[in-house]
Amino acid sequence: MPEMNIGLDMMGGDFAPLEAVKGIQMYLSEQNDSPANLFLIGDEEKINQLLIDHKVDSTHLTVVHAPQEIDMHESPIKALKEKPQSSISIGFQYLAAGKTDAFISAGNTGAMLVGSMFSLKVIEGVLRPTIATVLPKENGGTGLLVDVGINVDCKPENLNQFAIMGSIYAQWMFGVNTPRVGLINVGEEEGKGNMIAQAAYPLLKENKQINFVGNIEGRDLLFDKADVMVCDGFTGNIILKMAESLFELAQLKKIEHSHFDLFNFEIYGGTPVLGVSKPVMIGHGISHALAFKNMIIAAKKMADTNLLAKMQQAFT
Amino acid sequence: MPEMNIGLDMMGGDFAPLEAVKGIQMYLSEQNDSPANLFLIGDEEKINQLLIDHKVDSTHLTVVHAPQEIDMHESPIKALKEKPQSSISIGFQYLAAGKTDAFISAGNTGAMLVGSMFSLKVIEGVLRPTIATVLPKENGGTGLLVDVGINVDCKPENLNQFAIMGSIYAQWMFGVNTPRVGLINVGEEEGKGNMIAQAAYPLLKENKQINFVGNIEGRDLLFDKADVMVCDGFTGNIILKMAESLFELAQLKKIEHSHFDLFNFEIYGGTPVLGVSKPVMIGHGISHALAFKNMIIAAKKMADTNLLAKMQQAFT
Repeated sequence: MPEMNIGLDMMGGDFAPLEAVKGIQMYLSEQNDSPANLFLIGDEEKINQLLIDHKVDSTHLTVVHAPQEIDMHESPIKALKEKPQSSISIGFQYLAAGKTDAFISAGNTGAMLVGSMFSLKVIEGVLRPTIATVLPKENGGTGLLVDVGINVDCKPENLNQFAIMGSIYAQWMFGVNTPRVGLINVGEEEGKGNMIAQAAYPLLKENKQINFVGNIEGRDLLFDKADVMVCDGFTGNIILKMAESLFELAQLKKIEHSHFDLFNFEIYGGTPVLGVSKPVMIGHGISHALAFKNMIIAAKKMADTNLLAKMQQAFT
Repeated sequence: MPEMNIGLDMMGGDFAPLEAVKGIQMYLSEQNDSPANLFLIGDEEKINQLLIDHKVDSTHLTVVHAPQEIDMHESPIKALKEKPQSSISIGFQYLAAGKTDAFISAGNTGAMLVGSMFSLKVIEGVLRPTIATVLPKENGGTGLLVDVGINVDCKPENLNQFAIMGSIYAQWMFGVNTPRVGLINVGEEEGKGNMIAQAAYPLLKENKQINFVGNIEGRDLLFDKADVMVCDGFTGNIILKMAESLFELAQLKKIEHSHFDLFNFEIYGGTPVLGVSKPVMIGHGISHALAFKNMIIAAKKMADTNLLAKMQQAFT
């Protein structure tokens, strides 16, 4: 396996840079074989101090100073334009230039998306890049939910493409052969649904690149009905946040059960951006060390498996 | 309180008429003061035998023979037309004629909706009748989710009307004063969302008939953020079925916790049809005795509180 270089925005998220540093330490201490080389992008002084304080082995680390910061509520396009020295801007510059092989941030989601689409290339043939996330299944497996929020109004062909991108992700990242694709809908039969779901069904059914298993309903989402669950980003965002809330609900109700631990979304790291030319992971604003560690692992796997080349092939 | 007459389709649902009879028995045995008079519509012979077998007190019961049955998968319009002697058809005839004050069925949902709209009147001013259901909140309270499946493609004004009907239901059925209405969306701020949510927001904000509290997200649905949660029927159906599946998930995982018992939707009975001139409750196909009992209680309360007259006033 060739060495991988991963850029990490150290300033993104509510608990950065501290939790990012702790996540890096966690990552490095758990890697037996060659870890990725990590490029820590942000306030050099703060980062170096934290690395010393936490006695992090610096063998695989390079600190890249970024004098500017994009905060969580800034307008993405404006912020990226006006802050070329921000950690997010520099992260994308490094990725676009090939100095890194993947980029991770728990910062401003909008800026991460805009950066993904404009600093990197959208894969030719992809109408709309998308973001996906993992839902834990009843049997302990993982399903991929796509889109989870950037494409709130979709055309049927968008859903069809989400199915292709999601299938490739599930195959290479989760090791699922011929992943089952389900269309999220209000009933099982063909012909059910709102206009977009009705129109998407025949496209999915005729798509030879995927293993379409038909409609899946709300009751199937947390069960083992499909490996890739396709919907517009409005529906997907609500499903995702409702699923996330189950972890909080279980904690508040003091329900201790290993299955509910699977609703701790930090174990999946973050959300990959699919449909752009290089690996990008976006973390939740409230990411802690565990999420940072798992984003590094996921980003490295996206790079190691050459996932984006496989996506590109699928659209040629 | 005047006497109430409630029609009950004894043939609807997977476990009818047995579970309907058991539900009636449960209802009658728990009522200290005057129970409703129940009109048991269906196969007379079967019903009478079950009433004897289960030693049900027949003081408040009238069996109405219906020689035909509409099964779960029949085309609603065709079935209602071709089977005027079915339990659903007779149920609506009784309700429309004033022989009963409410009608309940766990049978063919489509036939119940078509019957509601064509045998009864749609309230003047209501663009689209809707169906609503209860979601249990983290604090033990109840939120009303509306629409949960009949209006999968909505216009903004439909959502605005769901908010009005939902507010009246929450006020009179749950005793919530000035119920908080939330618009289900992908973010908290005004301007977020898909086209329909974006367009619905200002309508809800300017609507003096409701207490609009803004957008609510997926993570808020099972928490105490709003008393009435408004969305299109596509989104609502997926939310409802995902919430219902939590009860099954908890059972499979042997998680015994009283809060998860609240996801047993039989405790809410069924789904009221809102926007038509008389009380109609639709039950889940897998309704057991508990669901039938609670549908009778809810239907009686809709009649007792004169809920539909209040809805009519709201739209004049």
